[in-house]
Amino acid sequence: MYPNWILQRSHLTPTRIALTYEQQSWTFEELKIISLERAEQLAALGIEPKSRVAILGPSTPRLVIMMFACMHLQCEMVMLNRKLSKVELQYQIDDAEVENILVDDEDVSLLPNLKKSLLFSEIESTDGQPIKVSNEWTAEQTVSIMYTSGTTGVPKGVRQTVGNHQASAVASVLNIGLSEEDVWLCAVPLFHISGFSILVRSLLYGNEVKLYKKFDANGAVTDIADGRVTHMSAVAVMLQRILQGLEDRGEEASPKFKLILAGGGPVPVNYLERAHRLKLTVSQTYGMTETSSQTATLSNKDAFRKLGSAGKPLFFNRIKIADAASPGTKGEILVRGPHVTPGYIGRFSERSATMDGWLHTGDIGYLDEEGYLYVVDRRSDLIISGGENIYPAEIENVLSGHPAVQEAGVCAVEDETWGQVPAAFIVLKAEATEDELIDFCKERLAKYKVPKYFYLVTELPRNGSNKLMRRKLIELI
Amino acid sequence: MYPNWILQRSHLTPTRIALTYEQQSWTFEELKIISLERAEQLAALGIEPKSRVAILGPSTPRLVIMMFACMHLQCEMVMLNRKLSKVELQYQIDDAEVENILVDDEDVSLLPNLKKSLLFSEIESTDGQPIKVSNEWTAEQTVSIMYTSGTTGVPKGVRQTVGNHQASAVASVLNIGLSEEDVWLCAVPLFHISGFSILVRSLLYGNEVKLYKKFDANGAVTDIADGRVTHMSAVAVMLQRILQGLEDRGEEASPKFKLILAGGGPVPVNYLERAHRLKLTVSQTYGMTETSSQTATLSNKDAFRKLGSAGKPLFFNRIKIADAASPGTKGEILVRGPHVTPGYIGRFSERSATMDGWLHTGDIGYLDEEGYLYVVDRRSDLIISGGENIYPAEIENVLSGHPAVQEAGVCAVEDETWGQVPAAFIVLKAEATEDELIDFCKERLAKYKVPKYFYLVTELPRNGSNKLMRRKLIELI
Repeated sequence: MYPNWILQRSHLTPTRIALTYEQQSWTFEELKIISLERAEQLAALGIEPKSRVAILGPSTPRLVIMMFACMHLQCEMVMLNRKLSKVELQYQIDDAEVENILVDDEDVSLLPNLKKSLLFSEIESTDGQPIKVSNEWTAEQTVSIMYTSGTTGVPKGVRQTVGNHQASAVASVLNIGLSEEDVWLCAVPLFHISGFSILVRSLLYGNEVKLYKKFDANGAVTDIADGRVTHMSAVAVMLQRILQGLEDRGEEASPKFKLILAGGGPVPVNYLERAHRLKLTVSQTYGMTETSSQTATLSNKDAFRKLGSAGKPLFFNRIKIADAASPGTKGEILVRGPHVTPGYIGRFSERSATMDGWLHTGDIGYLDEEGYLYVVDRRSDLIISGGENIYPAEIENVLSGHPAVQEAGVCAVEDETWGQVPAAFIVLKAEATEDELIDFCKERLAKYKVPKYFYLVTELPRNGSNKLMRRKLIELI
Repeated sequence: MYPNWILQRSHLTPTRIALTYEQQSWTFEELKIISLERAEQLAALGIEPKSRVAILGPSTPRLVIMMFACMHLQCEMVMLNRKLSKVELQYQIDDAEVENILVDDEDVSLLPNLKKSLLFSEIESTDGQPIKVSNEWTAEQTVSIMYTSGTTGVPKGVRQTVGNHQASAVASVLNIGLSEEDVWLCAVPLFHISGFSILVRSLLYGNEVKLYKKFDANGAVTDIADGRVTHMSAVAVMLQRILQGLEDRGEEASPKFKLILAGGGPVPVNYLERAHRLKLTVSQTYGMTETSSQTATLSNKDAFRKLGSAGKPLFFNRIKIADAASPGTKGEILVRGPHVTPGYIGRFSERSATMDGWLHTGDIGYLDEEGYLYVVDRRSDLIISGGENIYPAEIENVLSGHPAVQEAGVCAVEDETWGQVPAAFIVLKAEATEDELIDFCKERLAKYKVPKYFYLVTELPRNGSNKLMRRKLIELI
């Protein structure tokens, strides 16, 4: 039996603080009442139980409540990424065949067209219609769908079920512990698994989430130094700004602060050393959309002994390296456990996410003698920029669509702020300026995916079977 | 995927202390190594993987290791209760059709006969045989079988699966929290769910268990006052002795000590008040063999506001009262969740434990306006004596088998030490002395079930349909 997390949590600890945003707070009971009301309003507007809806909005309580309302209706929520271009959003909306798009008024201008869309304000001012909300969910039921690209650069909608989310949240608590006083600072996007999983954990654990509309280094530093929060999820670029902030102020993390879960790519060693000096506990983690957040996490205790490692699997998971006969052998990282997605929707719905029960991540890594995971090479030359995944093929596909481009190759270039940024290598067949190419990309790609550098070359490095060798691109500079 | 808890825990935190007994400690890795060795020895002696074995022994590391070895072999362990009479043990051994009985040398004299039995010493001195131990278990696999009686007084073997135990342990942590420093004092029997669930939690949480061979009030008081342990499971009679001990010494619980989980029947209000004064946190809990330990737990915070309540369900459970239209209405307590047994073995194997997914506990209770559970009457006039369940029908069945007894009725009498003790009301058809009846019972019943009082009466109170009215027995005194 899987309880409706919102109803059950409110039943168990109604008066505990669930959510804080700026100066306002809501208890679990208040969130339940408002989200049930919102669900009734959605029903009155024709949103069917178990239908598929897309949601778009900034990280505010309005969005949280809208998500919870959809969860009461057991809808499949397609989490739209606010940073995407209209072309990218349109692709996802089409692929997911959503019946409705719920959009925060603030984000209307981001949508490619307003067909099927319902404004938050419209929903909030509708008279509700009585509905029957289930006390129980099933493990297999899809809660959220998040798009992520793969080798081909074509985004796939990943299903995240009740069972996936619950297993992930529970496994995390067995790793990092739990106290009633825990408060998670959420400054990562709610449309990403990093942010949404904080909401799920809050419902399962009964702990408060302090929500930021966007990452604010200054606010985070204050919250961490004062012990106003105890946990935070961050990517390297956020961590760097927090470290800088603490250093500038000459402050340390409060003893009440427990840990920063650092995901979305590797954390530079230098950051870990500075965090250590600032008494800031950092746990590096390895996870992905397909694993509903963390699949391995390195404890702070091991941070220096196992420098560069993503740690060990969480309790309900297993990790192995394909065809690795002994520790230290590199190979594809395979993951198994109840947190692994059952598969995709849309054009990839026929494709299974796993083979023989194992998720083939495409990432290359190895396990050391003690079973610690080291990720040495990201899948499909993945570029990780400020925690966002960028697949070179996706950018190459766009550039190749430009009338003047004969072929294009994209790879990562190191960047002090973002860790990595994409660089494009282009063979032209007609005249085109860099500005033209940038504009062309901007229309079709999220801003963070637009190459920061363009290099015109006469040919791209290819191997014997004519496959683009992205790793050789950098040598062309 | 359900991991082999022992292998997974040892993989994740090999060097943490898992078990302490007297002056000795074992890490999770050590327990893994020894239990794997023991599993190989069991295999060499012909114990088949997935076969059903009975286990009998006092609460020592030897028993823990033997249990873990059986778990590696995925055996179904019938946990024999050391307090039972030979007649009772024989019934369980026959009913369970066990293929082997593993018995601690110390307990050989408790067994009705030595057929099928293997001594711990014999196992420990055997040369092992290589085996293949699975890294993964399934939710449905039976880990333990514990016998409990019901309305008819005939003991039923309750299956407790991997899924049951895991759900129970995880739900508990979402309720009471978890820290790496937690240490559970285990002074309740390992053959009971109260004790065995401490071992399961230790494997899932990675925390230390401090094991007592038997409850030692003096030792427990020291461990609690010194903060050597952080959690303990206890029944009322143990709690009373701990309170007395702290009071006598003029000490308080250490601030490091977190809570006593008080189960196996109600805790007198007076104990709660004394615990409060001694800064000892007590959480009352309601659970049973069929729910693999706790199903509801009252937080200490609510101890006085909700005096006498067993609290709220744990996160993955639901509790309702049969046919209760509104709060406050009394009725049978129904329980639902992944911790509820799938059913029985032996002569009751055809009987489902649940109806429409709900376990009908036979206990009577109500839920208040806020959803707190109050247990007002135990199933089948259940007598709870020092945390042990005694079913009147079981004693009546035995007494009725005596040649001089025409009929017998048994009910609870309040007792200052044990909470309750059984009293027998007997209609004779021939001469018999009380001593004769006591001896007759002692041969067939665990000592704690032998009635403390015998009353000779001319007839038993019965209702219109001739059903024994046990609640009226007490009026005959």
